[in-house]
Parts: sequence; structure tokens; C-alpha cells
Amino acid sequence: MRILVLHGPNLNLLGKREPEIYGKTTLDEINSELIRRALNLGLEIQCFQSNHEGSLIDEIHNRIGWTDGIIINPGGLTHTSVALRDAIAGSGVPAIEAHLSNIHAREEFRKKSVIAGVCVGQIAGFGANSYYLALDALDRILDPQGRSTTI
Amino acid sequence: MRILVLHGPNLNLLGKREPEIYGKTTLDEINSELIRRALNLGLEIQCFQSNHEGSLIDEIHNRIGWTDGIIINPGGLTHTSVALRDAIAGSGVPAIEAHLSNIHAREEFRKKSVIAGVCVGQIAGFGANSYYLALDALDRILDPQGRSTTI
Amino acid sequence: MRILVLHGPNLNLLGKREPEIYGKTTLDEINSELIRRALNLGLEIQCFQSNHEGSLIDEIHNRIGWTDGIIINPGGLTHTSVALRDAIAGSGVPAIEAHLSNIHAREEFRKKSVIAGVCVGQIAGFGANSYYLALDALDRILDPQGRSTTI
Amino acid sequence: MRILVLHGPNLNLLGKREPEIYGKTTLDEINSELIRRALNLGLEIQCFQSNHEGSLIDEIHNRIGWTDGIIINPGGLTHTSVALRDAIAGSGVPAIEAHLSNIHAREEFRKKSVIAGVCVGQIAGFGANSYYLALDALDRILDPQGRSTTI
Amino acid sequence: MRILVLHGPNLNLLGKREPEIYGKTTLDEINSELIRRALNLGLEIQCFQSNHEGSLIDEIHNRIGWTDGIIINPGGLTHTSVALRDAIAGSGVPAIEAHLSNIHAREEFRKKSVIAGVCVGQIAGFGANSYYLALDALDRILDPQGRSTTI
Amino acid sequence: MRILVLHGPNLNLLGKREPEIYGKTTLDEINSELIRRALNLGLEIQCFQSNHEGSLIDEIHNRIGWTDGIIINPGGLTHTSVALRDAIAGSGVPAIEAHLSNIHAREEFRKKSVIAGVCVGQIAGFGANSYYLALDALDRILDPQGRSTTI
Amino acid sequence: MRILVLHGPNLNLLGKREPEIYGKTTLDEINSELIRRALNLGLEIQCFQSNHEGSLIDEIHNRIGWTDGIIINPGGLTHTSVALRDAIAGSGVPAIEAHLSNIHAREEFRKKSVIAGVCVGQIAGFGANSYYLALDALDRILDPQGRSTTI
Amino acid sequence: MRILVLHGPNLNLLGKREPEIYGKTTLDEINSELIRRALNLGLEIQCFQSNHEGSLIDEIHNRIGWTDGIIINPGGLTHTSVALRDAIAGSGVPAIEAHLSNIHAREEFRKKSVIAGVCVGQIAGFGANSYYLALDALDRILDPQGRSTTI
Amino acid sequence: MRILVLHGPNLNLLGKREPEIYGKTTLDEINSELIRRALNLGLEIQCFQSNHEGSLIDEIHNRIGWTDGIIINPGGLTHTSVALRDAIAGSGVPAIEAHLSNIHAREEFRKKSVIAGVCVGQIAGFGANSYYLALDALDRILDPQGRSTTI
Amino acid sequence: MRILVLHGPNLNLLGKREPEIYGKTTLDEINSELIRRALNLGLEIQCFQSNHEGSLIDEIHNRIGWTDGIIINPGGLTHTSVALRDAIAGSGVPAIEAHLSNIHAREEFRKKSVIAGVCVGQIAGFGANSYYLALDALDRILDPQGRSTTI
Amino acid sequence: MRILVLHGPNLNLLGKREPEIYGKTTLDEINSELIRRALNLGLEIQCFQSNHEGSLIDEIHNRIGWTDGIIINPGGLTHTSVALRDAIAGSGVPAIEAHLSNIHAREEFRKKSVIAGVCVGQIAGFGANSYYLALDALDRILDPQGRSTTI
Amino acid sequence: MRILVLHGPNLNLLGKREPEIYGKTTLDEINSELIRRALNLGLEIQCFQSNHEGSLIDEIHNRIGWTDGIIINPGGLTHTSVALRDAIAGSGVPAIEAHLSNIHAREEFRKKSVIAGVCVGQIAGFGANSYYLALDALDRILDPQGRSTTI
Repeated sequence: MRILVLHGPNLNLLGKREPEIYGKTTLDEINSELIRRALNLGLEIQCFQSNHEGSLIDEIHNRIGWTDGIIINPGGLTHTSVALRDAIAGSGVPAIEAHLSNIHAREEFRKKSVIAGVCVGQIAGFGANSYYLALDALDRILDPQGRSTTI
Repeated sequence: MRILVLHGPNLNLLGKREPEIYGKTTLDEINSELIRRALNLGLEIQCFQSNHEGSLIDEIHNRIGWTDGIIINPGGLTHTSVALRDAIAGSGVPAIEAHLSNIHAREEFRKKSVIAGVCVGQIAGFGANSYYLALDALDRILDPQGRSTTI
Repeated sequence: MRILVLHGPNLNLLGKREPEIYGKTTLDEINSELIRRALNLGLEIQCFQSNHEGSLIDEIHNRIGWTDGIIINPGGLTHTSVALRDAIAGSGVPAIEAHLSNIHAREEFRKKSVIAGVCVGQIAGFGANSYYLALDALDRILDPQGRSTTI
Repeated sequence: MRILVLHGPNLNLLGKREPEIYGKTTLDEINSELIRRALNLGLEIQCFQSNHEGSLIDEIHNRIGWTDGIIINPGGLTHTSVALRDAIAGSGVPAIEAHLSNIHAREEFRKKSVIAGVCVGQIAGFGANSYYLALDALDRILDPQGRSTTI
Repeated sequence: MRILVLHGPNLNLLGKREPEIYGKTTLDEINSELIRRALNLGLEIQCFQSNHEGSLIDEIHNRIGWTDGIIINPGGLTHTSVALRDAIAGSGVPAIEAHLSNIHAREEFRKKSVIAGVCVGQIAGFGANSYYLALDALDRILDPQGRSTTI
Repeated sequence: MRILVLHGPNLNLLGKREPEIYGKTTLDEINSELIRRALNLGLEIQCFQSNHEGSLIDEIHNRIGWTDGIIINPGGLTHTSVALRDAIAGSGVPAIEAHLSNIHAREEFRKKSVIAGVCVGQIAGFGANSYYLALDALDRILDPQGRSTTI
Repeated sequence: MRILVLHGPNLNLLGKREPEIYGKTTLDEINSELIRRALNLGLEIQCFQSNHEGSLIDEIHNRIGWTDGIIINPGGLTHTSVALRDAIAGSGVPAIEAHLSNIHAREEFRKKSVIAGVCVGQIAGFGANSYYLALDALDRILDPQGRSTTI
Repeated sequence: MRILVLHGPNLNLLGKREPEIYGKTTLDEINSELIRRALNLGLEIQCFQSNHEGSLIDEIHNRIGWTDGIIINPGGLTHTSVALRDAIAGSGVPAIEAHLSNIHAREEFRKKSVIAGVCVGQIAGFGANSYYLALDALDRILDPQGRSTTI
Repeated sequence: MRILVLHGPNLNLLGKREPEIYGKTTLDEINSELIRRALNLGLEIQCFQSNHEGSLIDEIHNRIGWTDGIIINPGGLTHTSVALRDAIAGSGVPAIEAHLSNIHAREEFRKKSVIAGVCVGQIAGFGANSYYLALDALDRILDPQGRSTTI
Repeated sequence: MRILVLHGPNLNLLGKREPEIYGKTTLDEINSELIRRALNLGLEIQCFQSNHEGSLIDEIHNRIGWTDGIIINPGGLTHTSVALRDAIAGSGVPAIEAHLSNIHAREEFRKKSVIAGVCVGQIAGFGANSYYLALDALDRILDPQGRSTTI
Repeated sequence: MRILVLHGPNLNLLGKREPEIYGKTTLDEINSELIRRALNLGLEIQCFQSNHEGSLIDEIHNRIGWTDGIIINPGGLTHTSVALRDAIAGSGVPAIEAHLSNIHAREEFRKKSVIAGVCVGQIAGFGANSYYLALDALDRILDPQGRSTTI
Repeated sequence: MRILVLHGPNLNLLGKREPEIYGKTTLDEINSELIRRALNLGLEIQCFQSNHEGSLIDEIHNRIGWTDGIIINPGGLTHTSVALRDAIAGSGVPAIEAHLSNIHAREEFRKKSVIAGVCVGQIAGFGANSYYLALDALDRILDPQGRSTTI
């Protein structure tokens, strides 16, 4: 089983700017932790960050056939990108939307996600743990026996 | 550390009605699994279900001082209950909103949560696993060293 | 065939307060008339009133397996209770929403029903007769030959 | 007592098109049943169908003085025709809005009726029975002793 | 100079129904008064009433080339008929919208006119006088020297 | 019978600025014509212009007891001044809202009048003639026999 | 004269939680002060708190005939409970809505009250004093000579 | 294969009024060109214009069984007629909405079509060519091999 | 301690016009009663009425340094005046908004206050008593020991 | 005459994913067919696809001077990209918006196009044929004699 | 070249109240600096502040013929005053809207300007410098060679 | 002090297309003038244009640590790009939004800026001068003594 992790615009700054808000953990550290955990779960994982909506879509397209599931933090594109939504819907694999912050407790325009409607679910508000929880969730969904037992 | 799990209206029917939609897992089975997992994590846990908004609020009040964190699936109250929101805010402990289904992919009126704004985060769309993921998330938040390391 | 009749908040005051608006018929008289008519139609009937949203939901849950159809006047909960909507949808039997007054000719906030979307139909504006008409309608729906002939 | 039954646009197709949705009963059969039932109730009845908003208004005008009550299924005009609303209001007799389908469970634009505000009540969702229930309701309203006893 | 006066749906009932609201003046009396006043102003006039949107549009089309100006009380079509708006715009002559009642002091849905945007102006609230004032206004507009002097 | 004519903000510029839009007629000329016409109708008239909302309200208050009717062109205050609306409502005499331009064919924010709801009627789009038509309309309303005969 | 004081959801926590926001005064202390002041005014008073919408409605119903006026702080139900609104309207006695905080200066969803439309008035923003001011106001309203003199 | 072409209100004026906007081509010329092109495609065609919503619906009803596809320019009814929408949906044949002008670049109220939701597609902005393109499109749809090859 | 009482547009008419609505008490009488009560409370008071938004703002500015608190009934400016809001916010002293009528039970546009967001609280619906209650409330707020004891 | 065909995000997947929805035709096949048809019409054509909004804008800029017309299917950018709209408007050549599916019959957020307002017209719902119809339409528009004869 | 600088409501308090927000610079100091800079630019300048909408309009009217351009900070009137908008539009000279604070980053109701639509441009967020930048901008616009060279 | 100037989509066309609207000045000329002026002010400056949202974000990220302030004209991204907003907010330096045209006087969808909320201020409507004014403003903000003296 192979998983594609996508980080949208500005997430490359993680841990480098405004640590009082976003913590000190860098995106590299999150990716390393994701890889370590995936290894434990017997999953192959690829992480990709871009500030370009088009590059995120390209990556999804390129990984069709390779990936069995997607974890995506679309960043600021969450609220606007119909194109990204269509790409995820077209990928044919289950996707999970993850957010570091609780978008439902922020500005009004951050509460609505254009992406979530084509995902299996959404996890928001747990910092880097949102990614790790999403990995656990995806592991269960992809486990051929997972859904039938506890979900 | 002690955790209060709250199930809102109609969740008592889980696993008994419409299994093709909500699966065959009953609320009792979910509660048992939560207790088992809590035990493993060294957490004490209490589960409570009610179809009464007021009883859910009463339970939150009664558990003030006892509970260190809340996991709540407010069911249909998610979208309307300001009173429940105020109770959670007044509890003074971190709360996580969990949903079996991905509310962001359902009817328009289910997309907005009145509760999420006073929670640490929201997990939606993973069936019973939404609860288990919430438990893991809460464990990390309550762990005195948890937030500073990986979140 | 068994029918559950549910009266929501404030309907217990019927016939006792503001007779110039709601008439002099009490809820007991309506219930008696419903029972008398049900008897004639060969239907068993149970009537239940509560000012508690949760009690109405509890009653629906308790009557699952017993009831073959529901007549409900949700009163003020008509416009707000997603939880009651979910309970009716989860009951698995046909439900009819009945209102004494014509809610479509009253204040703007009374025109929209959160409940009607999961009911077979809605009858509004005929005073106590709204209940009796609903009984006739439900009788037809439950009659194994009813729907195929005239509806 | 004389009753005017008005069928709006496209109702002439009833029973001829899309029987899986609207059933096999034709408008003629509904009209015949209405006449038969009216006879039993001692009521005179006239049925009229038109796809023309203006013809429906003309018919209402022509029947002023003749009719003691109106049953109207305005079809697609339900949601738009202020002119039809004014005609009903101007008729000076009680009117009941009837719908075959439960408009409150359909597209958003079908949920709001421009007509219902000037009617005594609305019955929706019971197929041809919506008309028959409306007839019963109107019979009660027109019965000089009806309103004072059970409604 | 020739003027077309158009009366929309339900205006044929004027003076016959609800005199306490609309007064006792009939549409025939208004038309007679309009003809008498037009004669005094040296204007030819034709009055036309229909409950059919299409007939009103037909009449406008038929009078193209004949009429130099239009006075229209669109009745309930005021708030909905884009087709009537287009017909007036296509007539190529100045039009005045007249209303017996002050639509700006009635129900919310009566305050907005779809028609007024293609008219020279609107007169509302003066009963039958709204028509006579509209005639005076149109006379001034059509007077080759009128606009340049006092308007 | 005495009439108060009120001109709101910027109307003092009439005829002096942008003659291609508003014509060459000055406010003084309109006032003179209004006085001349009032004389013919046997009416006493007072004209008042101010760019101050408060002064317009003061003038209405000062004229209570003196005036039998009001003609008001509120200018830009039309769309915002609840205070002016309350002053007119409190004056206890019939008021007519007049506009030089057809506000219903201009910017969206000019289409709605806060004032019109407390006036007898509204006349818009006829340049200076809007005032003269309003005078005629008011004369009819104030004529003890006027309303009963032709309006 | 007898007065019913109703405290809605979460008000039982008053003075026990978040003293920096809500102050240190407990609900018991407020009730005691209300009783003391009522005594001085020659009024009988009963205080009731519940987190259950239904119990608040039950209490209103039970006190019909006993109570001459109601003071209610509906807490989070202020913004949603049509059922509570209907109960107050049905009580037939004057009611005053009281809020500790100035709801008009808080979140957007707290600014609108579903309840206030059936109350005599609303007092918000003065902490426990909102109750005491409401008591004074109600005393004046109930005083047979009160309204005619200074209100 | 037989095609029904429907022209809504005001389209009879085409080429006769405002040639600078709508061009000099008359509706008769468009119909002739449509017939000529249909002949080339081996299609039978009938063209029908009416300013009456009801007549357009009547025509659709009358052509059920005869027509294999519909091309409709609903004119001003595009934005308001639910009845016409229902008639097209009830016809059971593919329909194409055609507009001379680009409705998406005009007034706000012209951008939304009530009709398009039940059509195969919409073509807008190409003058008379919108009809000819619609004919080509319909030919492809009706061609038993058309859809499977290139569409 | 010194208090500024501000009365907005049209309040000078109080007691002189529409006594059946607003009662017979004049503004002078209210001011006298306020002065009398202030005296009892050991407060100095100044009352000011104007129909001019600007004059109310000027008065607030002039009283900066003199006044310790403001009671304001902004009349029709309540719903529109951002400038008045800014003046109150800039005064640096606590302000209370008072209304004779219950604005929350009137027209939709009267329910929202632009002013309340910068006030300590709002009192509405108690006639002249709204002012007296506001005086009591302000007295408590200004009392150096008041807030810490009972509010 | 030279034409630029632009395909927006995700259209590269055409015919490769979800053939039951989008058919089996690939984007290459559509481009080949467009080139073949353009050749027949004596037109030069260039096709360009990108998932990057910026690349589509770059391509429009690069083709200024070269292209005489644009056919664009903006995919998910249709509903959001003001930048793309500005690029098309700035190109100075006629553009046609084409969609495979009937966007007016899909989710609410797909019904509104940000792009269509600066295009000559829009064609939606005919699968690959939408492109071919757009080519025919553009051919007519670019034909120096085209617009004057039949459009 | 002569410039009129207008300061709206509450700006007279500048530098005197809330220095932590608005700085210590007084309006007199800003006016002095504006005069000094105007002198350097060879411009004549007049500064005027009022809390009265009407006085600001009066000043604009009085300066017609004298002024060649306007700089206006409408304060709280920015968001509501159609009358001020009309006065600026009627002045016939270019106007610039200046704000001390960045209104686009404040409360929702401050983001929209009724005034900006009739101005050349808007400068917001730079404290007193907003005025000086506006002066520079206006100087360029008024410079007969300015616009053609660098703007 | 170093300044980053960012030009969004389509601004590369400046001076090359539609000179009657946007003038003849090219982006290169604006950049040259900005560099020349920066030199005079003792500022280092870098200009960057892209039609790619992602590239603009990349550039902001790359310049973190280098730049002390940002001037940005986001072009069509102004109204939609949350990602760009987040990038600016994350840069940690003051930013100014500049627009050639007065966006507040254009189409409704251009009036709202997603970007402005995280900028120091906005300057719109002065053509190329908007950039130069922004440079002056930024110079003042960055001047260690600037803000404390005149802003």
C-alpha cells in the first residue's frame, strides 16, 4: 500500500516562521515522522509540498496508479480550489483532508472547505498530529479487513 | 487523566438501524473499544449517551473537576445547540468533536458546526474510528510532554 | 397496523389557552377522536406529548418495532430540530408532519420545516382536522393495496 | 356548496408520463374520484386544468359567486405566480393548496410557495390522495357547524 | 399621439371585490375617465386588460407603430415577468408603471419591480389617480416641447 | 389646506450642475412653479431645502399643526434615513415621496426607499414634473371629496 | 403579585467557573438577592434553573395561573428556541428577557434573540444587575398604577 | 428523427426591432434556415413561437410522441418558469437551451436559468447561430451512433 | 459623578404626538424625573436632545472630561449611524443604550443596533422607565464599589 | 485565421479516468479531431493543456498577435479565476467558453462562471462536441462576412 | 490650483483621545503639515472638519468653482452616506478618499465604502500619511502634464 | 532597507494592450521609475512579476530575511487568493496593496480584497502612481523615526 502526502502553499515555512503559533516542528520533521510511522505500518509513503495549485494537481495525476490513498493539507487552497477538488475526485483513491489548526474556529472564510466534499473525512486542529492521525485513519481504510471490523 | 465521552441524540441506535449506512458496530461495542484503548493509554474513561440536550449539558457540568478532556459527537445538535457549545466552553478542559460520517460531504445544513469553535479540533468521516482517533489525539494533548514534542 | 402520534412542545396547552386562536378543543379531545377514528380504521394508536425534544426522540426509539407509521406535530421544534429529523429518518417507517395552523402564512421563520424533508408529506392549517386528515393519509399509505390503487 | 378544483401546468400529463414517479392514475381518474366523493358529501364540484396562468386566473374570476371553496394544485406556478396568489385572495372563498409530491423534500426552489400564504392550508406528498384529503378538509371548513366542533 | 393603457392580472375585478381596500371604482370607470381626459389632452387612447402575460405582450407587439407611449399596471406580474419587461423595452416608446396601491409599503416581495427598470418612471399609491397622473406625465413626455421646458 | 415641500441634500444644486443629466431648471424655478400651481388649486405652500437630515426633521416638526400634507424628495437620504422616516410617520399628515430620476432604473442601492413605507405613495422619474404630479396627487387626497370620488 | 424567574442552560455554573469573565456572584446569591428585593417590593418570587429546554417550558406551563410575570435569561437557547418563545407567548403574562453580558457586542450569532419578540423588553449587559433591573421593570409593569404614571 | 424548435416571448420581433442589437435576421429567416439545415441532416423539424408560457407548454405536450428532441429559446421565461422546466422534463426527449445573446454577460438576473437544469446543454451568445449549433448538437445526440463515437 | 443623557431624532415629540403609542409623558417630564432621581443618587446630570446626528456627536465631544457616563436613546440613528458609534467609543466612558419600545419586536430593520456594540448594555421596551433603569444601571457601574459587589 | 484551444486543469485525464462519466475519448483524440476540422475550415489551430492557472495565462499572453480567437474549457478554474478572466479580456480576440458537461445541471457552485462574462458565448453539455461546436461558432465569428449574414 | 480637504465626524478628536491607537498627531498638526506641503507644491488649500453630514455637503457646495480637487476622510459616514457621495459626484472635480486606518482590516461593516465609487481612488492605512499621499496623488492628477506622463 | 515589489497576473501586459484604459506606461518603465525613486530614498528594491500564484508565493518565501517590506499589486488574485494572503502574513514584514485602477468603482466582485486584511494599507486608483505612492508610504513606515513623528 502506497500513500501520497500533499502539503499546499506556505506549509514549507512550517517551524521556521511564527513558532509561537505553528510550533517549532518543521515540515521536514513532520515528513520524517510520517515516513517512520508508515514504515511501522508497512506502508510506502511519498511527501510533496508546493505553493503551486497546478503542481499539486500534476503530482496527483502523476501518482495515479502508484498511490492507494492521499493525505492532503491544502493550506489556503482549501477554501477556493475547485480544480484541486476535481483532481482528488479524479484520482479514484480515498483522500483525507488534514489541517494543523482548527479551521472551524478561525476566520469565517476558513470554515468552509471546497475539498472536503470529495474526501473520506477531515481532521483539523491537532498540529502535526493531524497528519499522524490521518495516517492511522488511512491505514485502517486501506486495510482490507479494517473497514469491516472496527469502522 | 480522565476522559468524558459524550454521544448525542440517536447514537444509541448505532449498529441497530440502517447497518448499510452506519455499519454493524453498536454504541456499546464502540464504548467497550474506547475503554479498552483508554486502559492501554493509562486513561480513565466514562461514556454517556443521551437524546436530551439538557442531559448532555448536565453530564458536562457534573464531570467538571473529574474530567481532563472531552470527546463529543453531538449528533444532530452539532448544527444548532449554542447551549451545548457554552457548556463545553465552560468546562475548561480540551474537547474534540467527532463524527462518524463526513459532515462536510452531506446536506448543506450539516456542514456548519456550532460546537467546533470551542473545541481543540474536529475529526469527521471515519466511522467508529473517528472516536478512536479522537482518543489518540486527546491522549497527546493531555500528555504533559505531548504538545511540546510532536504537535 | 400501529400508529404513533407525537405532539411537540406547548401542544399540551391546546384548548386551555388563547381559545380565540387555537379553538377550544383540548389535546385530550383530539387524542380521543384520533383513537376513535383509528378504531374504525382497524388501527392501533398511541399518543404522546412532550415539551422535551429528547423525550420525543426517546419515544420514537422506544416505538421502533412497534409502530408502522408516525404522525407528528413538532410544534416549535419544526424549524430547528435536526435531532428529531434524524430520529424520524432512523425510525424506518412513514411519517406525516401535521400542523394546526398554516405555517406558510405565518412569520418568516415558521415557513421552513427541518422535519418535512424526511416525511412522506405535510398537512398544515386545518386545526385538529390536520391530525385526522393525517390519520386518513397514513391509513392509505399503510394499506397494502392503498398506494397502488388511488395514490 | 360548490367547489372549484384547479390543476396547474403539466398536470394533464398525469398518469401518462413517468408512471414510476407519478403513478398510473390519470387526471381524469382523479377528477372522477373527486366528483364521486363530492357527490357523497353533498357537494357540487367543477374541475379545470390549464397550462396557462391566465386561464387559471380567468377560471377563478368566472367562478366568483358560484364557488364556495377552491382546491388548487398550482404545479410549477406554486413558486412564482403572484398573479395567481392575488386571484385566490380576491376570490373571497377558502382555498386549499394540494401537491402530489412532498415539495418540502425536493429541490430548494420547490420548498417555498407563493400561493400558500393566502390559503387556509396546504397538503403535500400523498399523491392523488392529497386532492381527496383536501376535499375532506374543505368539506369541514364549509360545513356551517364544522369549524366550531372539531377543527 | 396615441397611448396604450395596459391592465395586468386581476385588475378586471376592480371595484367589484374588496371595495373597502380597492374602492368602488370599476376598471370600466377608470378607462372611461382615462378616455375623457385623453380627449381633453388631444390624445388617442386604447385600454386593454388581460390576466394572461402572453396577451399583454401580444398587445404591446400589435400596437408597435400605433402607440407613442404606454401606461402599464402589471399587477402581480410586476415582480416576476422578465418577458413583459423585454416586451416594453422592445416597444421603443416611453412607458410608465402605475400602481393603485403603494407597493413600497406592502409585503417584501411586492417592493421590487422587474418592470420599472425599462420605464421612464413609476407612480404608486394613489388609487385610480395613479393612472390619471401617469396620463399627465406621459402627455408631458410626448409633448415635443414638454421635456425641454418644465421637466 | 397647507402643503410643505421638502427638498433633501444636493437638490439646491439643481439646474446649476450637470444640466445634461438633471436639466436646466433650478430649484427656485421648481419652487416658483409649485407656488403658482398651488395658488391655482387654492393651496398654501412652503418650500424648504436642506443638506442636513436634522434640519429636514426640524422643519417637519415645526410645521406640525400648520401643514396638511407633505411632498418630499429626500435625495440621498431616501435609502438610509430611518430618522426622517420616523419624522414623517410622526407628522400625522399624508406624505408623497417624489424623485426627479427613476430610482428603480439606477444603481442597486438606490432602488430601495426607507421613506416610502410611511408615505401614501411614490412618484419617480419625471424630472421637475414629479413634484407637480405629487402636488396634484396631494390635492386630490386632501380634497374632502377627492378620495371618495375618483381615487 | 407573583413572579417567575427562569435561568436557562449553564447559568447554574455562575460564579463557579471563569470568575474573570462572569464575576464571583453565584446563581444562589443572585436568587437570594432577587428574593430579598421582591420582598421589599411586596412581590412573591420563584426561581428556577434548568439546562433542559423542555423543563423550562414545563415550568412556565406549571406556573400558568400562579405567575403574574416572568423574568427569563434563556442562556444559549436565546438564539434558537422557538418552542420556548411559544411557551412564553402562551403564558399570557408579561415577560422580560435579561442577559448578564451585552449580547449585542458579542459573536454575530448571539446578537439575534428568538425570544425577545414575545417579551415586553430586553435588558442586557449589566451582570447580575440585569436581573435586578428586570425586577424593577416588572414591578412597574405589574403595578396597576405604574404604567399610567411614568412609563 | 423529428425536432421541435420553440421560441419564447418577444422572439417574434427578431429582426424587426433594435437591429443594432439583435441584427436584421427575422425569426422567419431563422426558421427557414433551420428547416433547410434539418433537411440536409435528414431531420424533420417544426418551429413554434409564442409569447404565452402556457402555449409553449401546450405545444410540448402536443408534440410528445412526435418529437425526438427539443431546441428551446425560452426568452424572458428562462429565468422564471418552473412550469416550462417541468414540461421539458416531462417530455422525455433531450432538449437544448439556446440564446441569441450571451446571458452570462448581461444583467445579474439573466445569468441564472431555471430551464437549463433539465436540458442536455446550453448554447448562448452566437446570435442566430446559437440555433444552428443547437441543431448540429441535437443531430449528434439523436444519431444512434453519435454519442458513442465522438461525444 | 456626572452623567450625560442624549435623546436622538424625534424624541422631542414625545408625549405630544401619538399618545396611544408612546404615552402622554413628555420629554421634559422624563428629563425632570431623571434629574430628580439623579439628585437622589448624588449624581449630576445633563440632558440633550437633537434631531441632528452631528449635534449629538458635538455634544459628546464637548462633554468629554465632564461626563463620567452616557445614557443614549439614538432614535432612528440606532440602526445606521457609524459616526455616532465612533463618538461614543471615543468618549472613553461607559454608555448605555435605552429605547422606549422593544426594538426587537418591531420591523426587521429596527432589530439591529449599530450603537450597542460599543455600549456596556442595552435596555429596551419599558417606555420612560427604560431611561430610569439605565440611570440605576449606570449608577451601579460608576459606583467604585458597585461592580465588585453585585454585578 | 489562427485559433488557440485551451484546456484547463484535469482535462489531461480525459478518457483515462471515469469513462462511464466522461466517455472514452482522450484529450489527444479531441485535439486531433479539432485539428482535422480546423484544416477543413482553413483555420490554423494550436491546443494547449495545463493544470496551472499561470501557464494558461502565459499561453494566452504568448499567443497575442498570433491568435485570432480562443476556445477555452477552464475546468475547475471556471468558477474562481479572475486572473484568467482578465487574461482573456486582455487578449483582444473573441473567446468561447466550452464545457463537456452541462455545468448548469451540476452542483450549485459550478453554475456560475467567472469567465463567461468576457467571452462571446458559452457552450456546455455536449461532451467533446462542445469543442467542435465552439470551433464552428468561432469560424463564423472570424469569417469577415459571417456575422453580417446569418448571426 | 486649489484643494479642499474635508475631515468627517470625530476626526476633531485626533491626537487627543486614544493616542495608543490613533497616535499623538492632532488634526491641527495634520492641517498645518498639509498647508506646508501644498505651499511647496504651489497649491492653495482649505481644510474643514465637521461632525455634521450636512455641513460637509454644504462646504462642498460652497467650494464649487473655487476648488480643483477634494481630499476627503468621511470617517463613519464612509459606509452610509449616499448624500455625501452625491455631493462629491456633483462637485465635478476629482476627489480622493483617505483613511487613517486600514478599513479593509477592520470590522466587516467598515470594509465597504459608499463614497469610493465616485472618487478617483482610495488611500487607507497610513495614519496622517494617508492625507499627505493623497495630496501628492491629487497634485499629479491636477498637473496638466501629470496624467499623460507617469500615471 | 530592502523592498520587494510584486506584480500579479496580467500586469506584464501593461502599456502593451488597451492603452486607452491602462495608459502607455509599460511595466518595465514602472519598475525603472520605482528603482530610480528607491535609489533616491536610499532603498534597495527588487521587482518581480508572475502570472502564477505559486511563483508569487515562492518569491515572497525566497525573500524572507532579505526584504524589509512588500509592495504588491495582486491583480486578479486580489479577490480570491487565500494562499497569497497567508504568504504575506507569514513574511513578517509590512506590506502595501497597490492597484492601478480604483477597484472600489468597478464590478462588484472586484471591490473586496482577500489580501488587504493582512496589509498595512491599500492604495488604489492612481495608475502607475499607486506604486510610487506605496513606495513613499513604505519608506515612511520603515524609517525608524517615521511612524513616531508624522503618521
